[in-house]
Amino acid sequence: MQGKFIVIEGLEGAGKSSAIASILMHLRAKGVKVTTVREPGGTPLAEQLRALVKQDWQEQITPETELLLMYASRAQLVANVIKPALAAGTWVVADRHDLSSRAYQGGGRQLGDEKLTQLRQLVLGDFRPDCTLILDVDPKLGLARARERGELDRIEQEQEAFFVRTRTRYLEIAKAEPHIYVVDANQPMQQVHHQLIQTIEEALFA
Amino acid sequence: MQGKFIVIEGLEGAGKSSAIASILMHLRAKGVKVTTVREPGGTPLAEQLRALVKQDWQEQITPETELLLMYASRAQLVANVIKPALAAGTWVVADRHDLSSRAYQGGGRQLGDEKLTQLRQLVLGDFRPDCTLILDVDPKLGLARARERGELDRIEQEQEAFFVRTRTRYLEIAKAEPHIYVVDANQPMQQVHHQLIQTIEEALFA
Repeated sequence: MQGKFIVIEGLEGAGKSSAIASILMHLRAKGVKVTTVREPGGTPLAEQLRALVKQDWQEQITPETELLLMYASRAQLVANVIKPALAAGTWVVADRHDLSSRAYQGGGRQLGDEKLTQLRQLVLGDFRPDCTLILDVDPKLGLARARERGELDRIEQEQEAFFVRTRTRYLEIAKAEPHIYVVDANQPMQQVHHQLIQTIEEALFA
Repeated sequence: MQGKFIVIEGLEGAGKSSAIASILMHLRAKGVKVTTVREPGGTPLAEQLRALVKQDWQEQITPETELLLMYASRAQLVANVIKPALAAGTWVVADRHDLSSRAYQGGGRQLGDEKLTQLRQLVLGDFRPDCTLILDVDPKLGLARARERGELDRIEQEQEAFFVRTRTRYLEIAKAEPHIYVVDANQPMQQVHHQLIQTIEEALFA
């Protein structure tokens, strides 16, 4: 049987990593075979692209270039890792996927959602996650947590307004689309994880 | 006054480099301020992408990934080099541009021209060359010349059928679109250069 594809989304410092660890534990306890991936990256070429897109450059990186590099990385990951795993019956839990591009480049960089959904269709066709969970965090709180973790990369160095636009786009899309759920990540971690797992249970096991 | 943007296209071994040298000489003799660029590449990030797309990988590179990397490189070159030069009144002669993607990824890799023109619109909007010249060479002859020059890169190592599809797509597009001219590059070099310069004179100075 085909595995399920779960995506965890959210701003920097939303708590995606610990949420994913908690989801993996829950699924494994249920006997589900599951693996995890992180975007951008996850194949040799995609990891190189991750490094390029995060580093500082002497030249201006256009929003379109950033978007294309994210999608190039995603195309490799989907074709060479995610699809083969799902076909083998393994579930995949991803730290970011297409929705990040729609929120960050579409919202934050203001490319608009129409361009973003066109590019998705062009590159991924009808491939979609079974369930996407957004960890919704106040940008100020998220950025403070990210800063505590250490140096910020090129994208994380953006102004707060960029992250406010990104968050707004996340919430707009979640309102309009089924299979995308929002969990309040300003709550204590245990409560967040509890809600995530409940949502996954209802969405994929009910 | 805005500079003009001239693009030289064609298969490996078609003679693009010497053609460009000859065009530059002609334009400079006329007092035109002109510079030259080569795709993929031409900015620090674009040069890194050139290296990634040409090297051999342990993983399969999807046609979509290859296309996105070509376009990411192109977006940087257009924004940071070509448009500023044209705006400053400098002419630009490019070794490959968007038509290479339509021929190689659209034709050779069989992604189709619709996807290619959609992506062009998404990334470049209405930005177009003033004049595109295809050096049309028999794939067998072109590849033999390219092989003489040294080691072939990942794309140049494709089978002959790939280059036959690429050439066919070049010629189909040239038939359908004005501002794209075909010059028979199987002829002796001097004749080829003469025809190129005549075409440029008629297209841009008449």
